[in-house]
Amino acid sequence: MEIIELRSDTLTQPTAAMRQAMATADVGDDVYGEDPMVNRLEARAAQVFGKEAAIFVPTGSMGNLTSIMVHTRPGQEVICESRAHILDWEMGSMVSVAGTVPRTIFGDRGVLTWSQIREKIVLNTAAYYRARTGLIELENSHNMAGGTVTPLDVFEEIWAGAKECGIPTHLDGARIFNAATALGVSVSRLTSGFDTVMFCLSKGLAAPVGSMIVGSRASIDRARVIRKTLGGGMRQAGVLAAPGLIALEEMSKRLAEDHANARLLAEAIATSPAVEIDLSGVQTNIVIFRLAGHGDAPGLVRRLEANGVRCSAIGPHSVRLVTHNDVSRSQCETAAKLIVEELSA
Amino acid sequence: MEIIELRSDTLTQPTAAMRQAMATADVGDDVYGEDPMVNRLEARAAQVFGKEAAIFVPTGSMGNLTSIMVHTRPGQEVICESRAHILDWEMGSMVSVAGTVPRTIFGDRGVLTWSQIREKIVLNTAAYYRARTGLIELENSHNMAGGTVTPLDVFEEIWAGAKECGIPTHLDGARIFNAATALGVSVSRLTSGFDTVMFCLSKGLAAPVGSMIVGSRASIDRARVIRKTLGGGMRQAGVLAAPGLIALEEMSKRLAEDHANARLLAEAIATSPAVEIDLSGVQTNIVIFRLAGHGDAPGLVRRLEANGVRCSAIGPHSVRLVTHNDVSRSQCETAAKLIVEELSA
Amino acid sequence: MEIIELRSDTLTQPTAAMRQAMATADVGDDVYGEDPMVNRLEARAAQVFGKEAAIFVPTGSMGNLTSIMVHTRPGQEVICESRAHILDWEMGSMVSVAGTVPRTIFGDRGVLTWSQIREKIVLNTAAYYRARTGLIELENSHNMAGGTVTPLDVFEEIWAGAKECGIPTHLDGARIFNAATALGVSVSRLTSGFDTVMFCLSKGLAAPVGSMIVGSRASIDRARVIRKTLGGGMRQAGVLAAPGLIALEEMSKRLAEDHANARLLAEAIATSPAVEIDLSGVQTNIVIFRLAGHGDAPGLVRRLEANGVRCSAIGPHSVRLVTHNDVSRSQCETAAKLIVEELSA
Amino acid sequence: MEIIELRSDTLTQPTAAMRQAMATADVGDDVYGEDPMVNRLEARAAQVFGKEAAIFVPTGSMGNLTSIMVHTRPGQEVICESRAHILDWEMGSMVSVAGTVPRTIFGDRGVLTWSQIREKIVLNTAAYYRARTGLIELENSHNMAGGTVTPLDVFEEIWAGAKECGIPTHLDGARIFNAATALGVSVSRLTSGFDTVMFCLSKGLAAPVGSMIVGSRASIDRARVIRKTLGGGMRQAGVLAAPGLIALEEMSKRLAEDHANARLLAEAIATSPAVEIDLSGVQTNIVIFRLAGHGDAPGLVRRLEANGVRCSAIGPHSVRLVTHNDVSRSQCETAAKLIVEELSA
Repeated sequence: MEIIELRSDTLTQPTAAMRQAMATADVGDDVYGEDPMVNRLEARAAQVFGKEAAIFVPTGSMGNLTSIMVHTRPGQEVICESRAHILDWEMGSMVSVAGTVPRTIFGDRGVLTWSQIREKIVLNTAAYYRARTGLIELENSHNMAGGTVTPLDVFEEIWAGAKECGIPTHLDGARIFNAATALGVSVSRLTSGFDTVMFCLSKGLAAPVGSMIVGSRASIDRARVIRKTLGGGMRQAGVLAAPGLIALEEMSKRLAEDHANARLLAEAIATSPAVEIDLSGVQTNIVIFRLAGHGDAPGLVRRLEANGVRCSAIGPHSVRLVTHNDVSRSQCETAAKLIVEELSA
Repeated sequence: MEIIELRSDTLTQPTAAMRQAMATADVGDDVYGEDPMVNRLEARAAQVFGKEAAIFVPTGSMGNLTSIMVHTRPGQEVICESRAHILDWEMGSMVSVAGTVPRTIFGDRGVLTWSQIREKIVLNTAAYYRARTGLIELENSHNMAGGTVTPLDVFEEIWAGAKECGIPTHLDGARIFNAATALGVSVSRLTSGFDTVMFCLSKGLAAPVGSMIVGSRASIDRARVIRKTLGGGMRQAGVLAAPGLIALEEMSKRLAEDHANARLLAEAIATSPAVEIDLSGVQTNIVIFRLAGHGDAPGLVRRLEANGVRCSAIGPHSVRLVTHNDVSRSQCETAAKLIVEELSA
Repeated sequence: MEIIELRSDTLTQPTAAMRQAMATADVGDDVYGEDPMVNRLEARAAQVFGKEAAIFVPTGSMGNLTSIMVHTRPGQEVICESRAHILDWEMGSMVSVAGTVPRTIFGDRGVLTWSQIREKIVLNTAAYYRARTGLIELENSHNMAGGTVTPLDVFEEIWAGAKECGIPTHLDGARIFNAATALGVSVSRLTSGFDTVMFCLSKGLAAPVGSMIVGSRASIDRARVIRKTLGGGMRQAGVLAAPGLIALEEMSKRLAEDHANARLLAEAIATSPAVEIDLSGVQTNIVIFRLAGHGDAPGLVRRLEANGVRCSAIGPHSVRLVTHNDVSRSQCETAAKLIVEELSA
Repeated sequence: MEIIELRSDTLTQPTAAMRQAMATADVGDDVYGEDPMVNRLEARAAQVFGKEAAIFVPTGSMGNLTSIMVHTRPGQEVICESRAHILDWEMGSMVSVAGTVPRTIFGDRGVLTWSQIREKIVLNTAAYYRARTGLIELENSHNMAGGTVTPLDVFEEIWAGAKECGIPTHLDGARIFNAATALGVSVSRLTSGFDTVMFCLSKGLAAPVGSMIVGSRASIDRARVIRKTLGGGMRQAGVLAAPGLIALEEMSKRLAEDHANARLLAEAIATSPAVEIDLSGVQTNIVIFRLAGHGDAPGLVRRLEANGVRCSAIGPHSVRLVTHNDVSRSQCETAAKLIVEELSA
């Protein structure tokens, strides 16, 4: 039975070109700064995002953690959305390793506005016995809100406000190329006001391993120290940078296809009376729907798995589907049909 | 000019077989435990070390940090040698991330004995206002002591004593295959009493990236949680596990050659009146010598570099050479000659 | 001008009896466990709360932090109310020192129910890449919700549920005697299911300095280690324990008076059309009201101060008043009159 | 039986004047900066030490921990003597709370010199993968080295060197008045080059509870934040500041008496062939001696206790005696006689 893999875009396989690149990569010891492929990837990532510098890290989680540590000191507050990935899916490392205090705000479809953020900021002028705001952290696209995107003008207001308050900003851009594709804006423009951005070469871009942080030269220098502290200073990392460069250059251009497939799935599923789905919230490659009448999401997931369609229960009544490079349009059509059938079974 | 690379075995290039393995590896998402190559490597590493389980980590530093966190809680003391790698070359992460207190002991040639360790142990029966010993950490071979090895019987006494005191033990075995080769003992026997062992697939074994922790099932389960917390949970890590398996199976068998080359270098250099070197301390693939009369080590290193021989100054008057898979016997002969010439220049 | 001090019950002055007790206290070195007054206070506190043991700490903040560290390890989640004192007014120490992750829930009038809590619990059986719940922390009375109380039956359901899940519970009982007085239940009954309780001898009980943790012998033994680590192991602490004992024995019995005074204030203020106040939320010694039409709270506070009435702005439009041992009924009547006058000015 | 208490000067009882001061102290809420006695004590301490500002803390341990956190960030190294109090007797809080890495140096009689320190400093110009020196911490008098003192000129060289390197310095001056008395130098002169100094009002100065940090206004402002984070922000702390002020003003002047008593004890004990003692190392109020022939220190301590003389075994063969305000000259004569008798028994 053919498997249609819709659990996550983290499951993407490296492409043939990526495998070839690994086999032939010119590598060196990156701890000493001597890996040519890593250096090339870092230079290119900085250029694509219009930042001074970039650094390769083994995972997005390390990228976010490192960035938080670049900007803050223990005891400072980090403003983030209530369902932020850094809070729920990174083992609380922003707390237990970085020592920073999450100050959460619920955002409609995961989008935070400056007026919401402003209310939670504790400035240096506050009484000494209040913990200060050290960082504003945002996520675009927002994973747990369903791959929803924050548009440029919302960010622009936040950047201006944060700057005025003297508070740095970091973007968890694990899927920033998805957001940029959906918005029709370049990643450099969509992130121009952030002090640092983390983005993943794995996930939708299909590289086997690795993420990047981009930012100022000083931030990235500091990130290099922190990466070493966390145990992320790899040796011949060029074998990962080589496929990463392909991910950055080429795979970033094909995401509209995944988004179209997600929409296909969402629209098909929306026809079922057994689901509740907000179609306008399906903006990138993620589809989240709820089962009406408190339907059993894990049960549905199990039944679909038995039919070759893999997806995730992300709550007792909620299901998530993610499209990516390893799921074709026709597979999505098949999956949609199977899901609708199961829903009416 | 041909470069003879003797700075470190961390600089080893992946072999052709390793590159081929990366290109063809069967991979999956290791965060979900679905990467076949990672699973195979972990099973094999556990088997080779005679432990219940193993886990792949991106670096030796993360392997040591993770292991320390497996065994301890913040505020406990970790007994280690004064020049331990975890103390001097891992950014103090045992402190700033694990929260453990280094309790150092100077060991002759880096070798600690049970009687030295026993004196520094603070048991649970001590007054409540003394921090307790949480872990004994040893290193074999000992990098900064010059690649020196601790023999099995010294370990056996420590294992017995630690067990009686109820204190876990961890081995930084970054170069344990070098130590085992030098001692003519299997790694499983040489590490049988340690609760956890970290060893590197990079360094002398020449894999591009990666290290392993081996230990009990419970320890490794906990290590998986910590690895995720540190940002070390990679996705299609099989592209690294594949060359890692070759490192483990094949490269571990050729280290005697590196040791012979190190000895060749050491004996040649010892003929120079300008150096002080303890030949009996040259036991594996590392050679450390001092320049007599407070000679200028960085200066010597620069002059050798200009002649194509790369090595490291590890102090104002000390130089370190490391042999490995990418330095042939004849290159070592050439290097020895050049070094002796420079020393008499 | 006479000052009527309604900013906080933390401002209470030691009574004459307390001062006398300090001057005559029989003291010793409490680090060595040799202070007779501290030992007596600890024994008596344990008895009053029906727990095995107790420990004296310099502040309520240290009491809460210590208790969190007793029950958790870094990286675990602590479930607490959104406006919990531990989160907003203790400098984020539960994060930056204890390394625990706040998992917040908004409770109506600060009261959390078991069904709300249950939804946020992450059990040990969850996927390894989810941080686990390490502690449930509640607050009674709830300071920032306006001194509101959680009744016994709500706690009983939480205790039963938490026990079933194997998750410990801690009560921030800074003002537990206020809550017990309001509910007409003994503190021992109102806290019987908590693993640890912190309560303050300062605040409403008027001791100059100090708080207590009560719990099992094992918890308190561990608290003693943590207290030392935080720098809270004082020497002749009996000079503080002596007035603390008076606070515990005598001052705990007079709180109904403060509550009546708070009600007097609240009811008087409620007659002003310029305020919004929920009278049923005024349950102990704290009164919080909002200024209608986005009135200027800091401005009002300044004007009242000029007239001898001190209170606190706890937001741009909210004011807090706290009654205590140093504010008489007639002072409250005067203050109420002045506040209503200012509100209509 | 009369008890002669020589275990520690931490056991000193508050004097009658101190008790009176507690009973009559004018107090307020020090969290709000409103305690007149605390403010007076802080102003006076700053003046005595010739620094800009001072802060009262409940213990010397919190004073040292806070000072370390004022100057450093997690992961930085703190240079200190091998037997430093911060390392061995403060529960490793400099590690588990401050996240700083102890970099230890053995000093003859506890005295570190600039040339020893210089060798261990890691400057910002070092390779990024080396942890940097964040602080130099010294101790005067040095407790575990036997109350030995570091003279002014040794400090002056360190201050000059540290300044040139841009590295801050902190003094653990728990017994700085003892050191100053022994050296015949004012505390302000003896500590003029330190960025911060912690000194104890308890111990030799006989206050029941409390220590101070003195330093620049900016350092003390930051210390206030950290003190609050650690749970050291007490309310009506004036009841402790009042006796503290007497300790600072008056008790600091009588220490020569304790030193003379220590010398009396040391000289008497030195006459016994059963002990090894370095009389020139007895410089303040601490006497440490070793039992010749591996004599049993805990046994001796028990036998002396049975005769009314309390002292401490600080190792299997070592005994420590500490003189203070509650041991008279004649008691020391009695104790000396009893000890010599026991030694020859």
